[in-house]
Amino acid sequence: MKLASLKSGRDGKLVVVSDDLAWCADAGHIAPTMQAALDDWDRIAPALQALSTDLAHDVIPKDRFHEREAAAPLPRAYQWADGSAYVNHVALVRQARGAELPDSFWHDPLMYQGGSDEFLGPRDDIPLGDEAWGCDLEAEIVVVTGDVPRGVSAAEALSHIRLVGLVNDVSLRNLIPDELAKGFGFVQSKPASALSPVFVTPESLGDYWQAGKLHRTLMVDLNGKAFGRAVASDDCTFDFGVLIAHLAKTRNIGAGSIIGSGTVSNRDADGGPGKPVAEGGLGYSCIAEIRMIEKIQKGEMTTPFLKDGDTVRIEVRDDAGHSIFGAIEQQAVQA
Amino acid sequence: MKLASLKSGRDGKLVVVSDDLAWCADAGHIAPTMQAALDDWDRIAPALQALSTDLAHDVIPKDRFHEREAAAPLPRAYQWADGSAYVNHVALVRQARGAELPDSFWHDPLMYQGGSDEFLGPRDDIPLGDEAWGCDLEAEIVVVTGDVPRGVSAAEALSHIRLVGLVNDVSLRNLIPDELAKGFGFVQSKPASALSPVFVTPESLGDYWQAGKLHRTLMVDLNGKAFGRAVASDDCTFDFGVLIAHLAKTRNIGAGSIIGSGTVSNRDADGGPGKPVAEGGLGYSCIAEIRMIEKIQKGEMTTPFLKDGDTVRIEVRDDAGHSIFGAIEQQAVQA
Repeated sequence: MKLASLKSGRDGKLVVVSDDLAWCADAGHIAPTMQAALDDWDRIAPALQALSTDLAHDVIPKDRFHEREAAAPLPRAYQWADGSAYVNHVALVRQARGAELPDSFWHDPLMYQGGSDEFLGPRDDIPLGDEAWGCDLEAEIVVVTGDVPRGVSAAEALSHIRLVGLVNDVSLRNLIPDELAKGFGFVQSKPASALSPVFVTPESLGDYWQAGKLHRTLMVDLNGKAFGRAVASDDCTFDFGVLIAHLAKTRNIGAGSIIGSGTVSNRDADGGPGKPVAEGGLGYSCIAEIRMIEKIQKGEMTTPFLKDGDTVRIEVRDDAGHSIFGAIEQQAVQA
Repeated sequence: MKLASLKSGRDGKLVVVSDDLAWCADAGHIAPTMQAALDDWDRIAPALQALSTDLAHDVIPKDRFHEREAAAPLPRAYQWADGSAYVNHVALVRQARGAELPDSFWHDPLMYQGGSDEFLGPRDDIPLGDEAWGCDLEAEIVVVTGDVPRGVSAAEALSHIRLVGLVNDVSLRNLIPDELAKGFGFVQSKPASALSPVFVTPESLGDYWQAGKLHRTLMVDLNGKAFGRAVASDDCTFDFGVLIAHLAKTRNIGAGSIIGSGTVSNRDADGGPGKPVAEGGLGYSCIAEIRMIEKIQKGEMTTPFLKDGDTVRIEVRDDAGHSIFGAIEQQAVQA
């Protein structure tokens, strides 16, 4: 089953979307919003599933689904907690600034609490603010949870995953060092993130979803050129069960919480840092990473952060080449 | 005007509360929940105000208001961002562990993004979890904002404050050092916080609310004894306008965001660290602070963190001795 929120008011209007993302059916009679569905999932999901089946069988009224009309599936949420499952990404960032990677990073996930009061829609502009802030994309996988009890195990946590999607975790790189030094996490350096047009139940991902990892390539394009083609299940140190259990160690997690994987990042086949797609590598899911590699290899970062007019595209496709979650497709604008 | 949410479902049931906290009137016909009121405040606040006036004039049906029946005014929120306005508190913590206080801490607020998917009601138990985690209270002032535009000035930010209240920002002290070292903020070390029974509009606080500070004493009792009597407007380096502007530097803030002051803390009259209330001082708003002073003065921390059965009470009173926000009154339970 695929769900989306059409732009409407603060929380959007819940629709069920066809597998091929071409059609949608109003789900307002079942639940007005995505959050309302998540609040009462056990009762509401079967009704949404029935609607989804009716849509597939073409026996109910339907409308064209346009990704540009979609809000973030949760335009605001009660929680956004972002992990760092791809330790390769963290290792590169540390290597570039000559810092050690603590061994604990391989078994104790990094995770920060992000702002969840505003999520951008998949076609919304990225406001650059001050260009000196160094605006970057971060392409990631996210899951949405139901209610999760405190102290849940990593294995049990997997059963609380309701939906899977994508995020562009917009990051202001030049504000990060000072905030990291304070130790209090990211407040100013992480403005609103954008979510994919469609969120999908793990069941309907079939073999693409295994043991809390998405076994697909995360396609990231920058200004119309292939920039990242990392495989989300490779070099993924922490599956989503581990990330959820980390967050739930000392507290309950409320329904509709969004948990992120951190920037997807693959090592090169030879074990070194990844090569650009143009050089036969799997590329990068954020600009910071290619800059780190430039610094490590050439002593200088040359790829600039996002500038006015730059475009970012983030998508995952199935074996037949069809988009699974729809595409995040944003333009950076000086505003 | 005073507002509360009676326990009901995930978001409570909005009521208007009389100034003396004795009575309440159902506001469900105006807005079903506190968040719904905040989402459309300019339209809804006048209707709530009229209801409040009718309640005061005893011309509508009313019910007894019992603080024990109150949920957190926002049982879940889209944002909880907690500052450190009382740099004295931060300075003591640093002094105790022999760390320098960076000069920037006096003009650049510390702030972390907290979990907002669950707020405890004012009489809910504090679940201790593992006693080795070192559970502490932190008594603070909070405000709730309307929509705040990115880049708002500190002066302008004050006009976006809709409500004022109290929080017990429950903290797991022994989990904090490792999380601070990671730099990613507090995830496991900050479980659900508790909010005061009632939130109050700044206008109805009169002279007690000036320039984004609450000019009242924050009364903190531990196990029935006076523990803290700090004046919230004293030694407050950053008013709420500055804290909101800090959060809004790079992003919009959504209606219903809760912003905290950080642990209220006063210096002693002689400029030194505060003395216990029993010794004529203003005491402390968290256990960590007295432990720091014990360490600085005696080389050893002797006051224990919260144990099973300990009680915490946090309240602010007016000149006549009447409770303004109602009392947070919680028991720590081994669970």
